[in-house]
Amino acid sequence: MQLFYAPQITRNNFVLDEIESRHCVQVLRRKVGDTLQIVDGEGGMYKAVITNAHPKKCAFSIEETLTFSSQPFQIHIAIAPTKNINRFEWFLEKTTEIGITQITPLLTQRSERKKLRTDRLQKILITAMKQSVKAHLPQLNELIPFKKFIVQKAENSKLDTGSTAPNELFRGIAHLADNNLPLSKVYTKGENALILIGPEGDFTSEEINFALQHGFEGVSLGESRLRTETAGIVACHTLHLVNQ
Amino acid sequence: MQLFYAPQITRNNFVLDEIESRHCVQVLRRKVGDTLQIVDGEGGMYKAVITNAHPKKCAFSIEETLTFSSQPFQIHIAIAPTKNINRFEWFLEKTTEIGITQITPLLTQRSERKKLRTDRLQKILITAMKQSVKAHLPQLNELIPFKKFIVQKAENSKLDTGSTAPNELFRGIAHLADNNLPLSKVYTKGENALILIGPEGDFTSEEINFALQHGFEGVSLGESRLRTETAGIVACHTLHLVNQ
Repeated sequence: MQLFYAPQITRNNFVLDEIESRHCVQVLRRKVGDTLQIVDGEGGMYKAVITNAHPKKCAFSIEETLTFSSQPFQIHIAIAPTKNINRFEWFLEKTTEIGITQITPLLTQRSERKKLRTDRLQKILITAMKQSVKAHLPQLNELIPFKKFIVQKAENSKLDTGSTAPNELFRGIAHLADNNLPLSKVYTKGENALILIGPEGDFTSEEINFALQHGFEGVSLGESRLRTETAGIVACHTLHLVNQ
Repeated sequence: MQLFYAPQITRNNFVLDEIESRHCVQVLRRKVGDTLQIVDGEGGMYKAVITNAHPKKCAFSIEETLTFSSQPFQIHIAIAPTKNINRFEWFLEKTTEIGITQITPLLTQRSERKKLRTDRLQKILITAMKQSVKAHLPQLNELIPFKKFIVQKAENSKLDTGSTAPNELFRGIAHLADNNLPLSKVYTKGENALILIGPEGDFTSEEINFALQHGFEGVSLGESRLRTETAGIVACHTLHLVNQ
């Protein structure tokens, strides 16, 4: 199924943007009267009909609206982006497929990547959302220093995941330590979750202690030594499995 | 930790091959008397000392041997390689990190990739094994037509996973069907597992029926529509979580 993305639908603007219009009209040769499947990234999926096959501003009318509720638990992963950006892009694509609510790139003491351009990454999220026929676009936040983020998300913070859902928030920091219990054993089905994933070389012990002092729980992702992007995917999938 | 790979150790040949020798002697500038960590891919990890820093045939003596037992359950994933080979390479890398015993590339009715060069893929497995500090190299088989493979692995076959372990073999075929139970619910902790993953567009119903008739069980990997390589990673990780 070919999906188009039009976040402007939620503002009653029934025109595809330039990139989606070009793809629809010039690449796929869609014409007036043709049916489109459109998602708005916020849970809406639409059956639409082209009213003006303009190659830059393809207009449509909506025939039918389906609303998808978001998954009943929110997954927020805060992760140090990898030096090799392809690996981070893979993490974004795979977690979008599996299902993720929010991603926050972290600047940590051992981070090799200290800057991040989120515009290209945004496109990867959109493509992955369309590919996996989802109506929700994950929220990608800007890079933030580790301690600043921890303070924002601390146990008594009102901000939490930015969620309005009533679920409790499970806060976990995945790091290598012998006494951490597996995430699958300490996270409870239905909880919202915020999981921190460190850079290659792991969080520093100062960072780990700072998170523990702010209400985060140390968790293990299993026996294997995983790359950062693999740890992120594994954490996201673990939360889904507990909810299965 | 820098690991070197020397499968020839198991034949009492204490020389690194040309690629590993070049890396060790020319790139890393290791000299006579320096200590190396070596794995043989079959569960052995060695502390060795260089006796001749030859750039093509670096010789060493073994100081200490550690034997790692393999994980107590075997994971065999048979999967249709993706058209885009990078995606298949990612599957190999990630499942090696997470832990996999054997991989069989499948030629299915909807396969877009009908040939596969396994030599380059072998290098990816070796790199991933070393990166994740594992002593076992997953076995990568040659591409095989779907039905031929199913007949070999059918319920009454003596061949099973090629394993000598006494565990039962769980045979699953992951495909999109409303009545398939989640893999995490039907697979039992400790069992060896063989999971079939289809191409983009899924297995044909003929293929699915053929597998079901030969003792395979239909399984679901969750609600999300996953790409082939993501499904492979998710299946592998699900088996690990059940065993956690």
